Amino acid sequence: MSGRFITLEGGEGAGKSSNMEWLAERLRAAGKTVLLTREPGGTPLAESIREVLLAPSEETMADDTELLLVFAARAQHLAEKIRPALARGEWVLCDRFVDATWAYQGAGRGLDRQAIGSLEQWVVANSQPDMTILFDIPVEAGMARAGKRAALDRIEQEDMAFFERIRECYLQRANQQPGRFRVVDALQPLEAVRDQIAPLIEEMLSWP
Amino acid sequence: MSGRFITLEGGEGAGKSSNMEWLAERLRAAGKTVLLTREPGGTPLAESIREVLLAPSEETMADDTELLLVFAARAQHLAEKIRPALARGEWVLCDRFVDATWAYQGAGRGLDRQAIGSLEQWVVANSQPDMTILFDIPVEAGMARAGKRAALDRIEQEDMAFFERIRECYLQRANQQPGRFRVVDALQPLEAVRDQIAPLIEEMLSWP
Repeated sequence: MSGRFITLEGGEGAGKSSNMEWLAERLRAAGKTVLLTREPGGTPLAESIREVLLAPSEETMADDTELLLVFAARAQHLAEKIRPALARGEWVLCDRFVDATWAYQGAGRGLDRQAIGSLEQWVVANSQPDMTILFDIPVEAGMARAGKRAALDRIEQEDMAFFERIRECYLQRANQQPGRFRVVDALQPLEAVRDQIAPLIEEMLSWP
Repeated sequence: MSGRFITLEGGEGAGKSSNMEWLAERLRAAGKTVLLTREPGGTPLAESIREVLLAPSEETMADDTELLLVFAARAQHLAEKIRPALARGEWVLCDRFVDATWAYQGAGRGLDRQAIGSLEQWVVANSQPDMTILFDIPVEAGMARAGKRAALDRIEQEDMAFFERIRECYLQRANQQPGRFRVVDALQPLEAVRDQIAPLIEEMLSWP
């Protein structure tokens, strides 16, 4: 018996987290054992790597260091939490996974895509998600929802371009991998978003 | 102007550290600016990765995680400390470097050598040491010097085999890369060990 691996992706203010618990409840109501987790992190050791990644520091983190830490945390998360849960037949819902590395580190920060590809092939291997739900929302609307101002100064404009690259990368990946990705229009109100997720749940539950 | 990169390798009780400061003094006396450093670690951020690597934990660290963290720390050390010092024309003396990964993680712990090779090629690239001094000592003698008992119980016998694999790996690498490695018989008394290092210093100082 093997479980199912579902990832939720999307930029700031797209509503991933507020829909993840709802999705979990629907799957539990259908009799599934559901594990909620997130990246980077997901185990105590992976969370301690997350702390190194996110801690403010006067020392510039080298690009290679950042990528290696992201995948070190992912390797630990896969080995200690995701793969054992799937082997027990559980459904794993994960807030961000390897697509976020392509979007944030690859498209956003411009880190070496060949390195990302090699690390993905080695660390993730055949543990790719069965379905990835992309919560897509225009950057400015997402930022406004996330509680940021709509009017942007110069620095914030740079942030805009950064988040635009992330959104484009997510949409491009969804377009290239239609078998795995499902795109939800996250600009709509919560109820309408859930109306889009409901058929995806039907689809998951119809899996053999 | 480019500096020189010297690494010191060897097992427990081989006397690396007690000879590193002496070597530095000899190079300083010859007018060189010398930077002493160590792995894993060497910068505040790399030291925080070292802490994650070495902290006792109830959670088993996955092999991939261990390798990725070792090379994340090394990437940071190279980017922020070693390469800038070499670019300033300094001499960098480093207590353990990538050979220790081959010996401890590869031969000792049996981690994936292909992965070590790929990470070495990517992260270390052309920043290989100009000279690596291997302090070689029979395992039992080294352990006795490091303050451990000579009589071994079953678990300690396993440790013996672990440290034997490390010593063999170091000697094998020295044999395969005679241009870079210099092997010092570290079983001899301190004065006799320094008599072996002295001509190596002459050799370094004769470099163009």
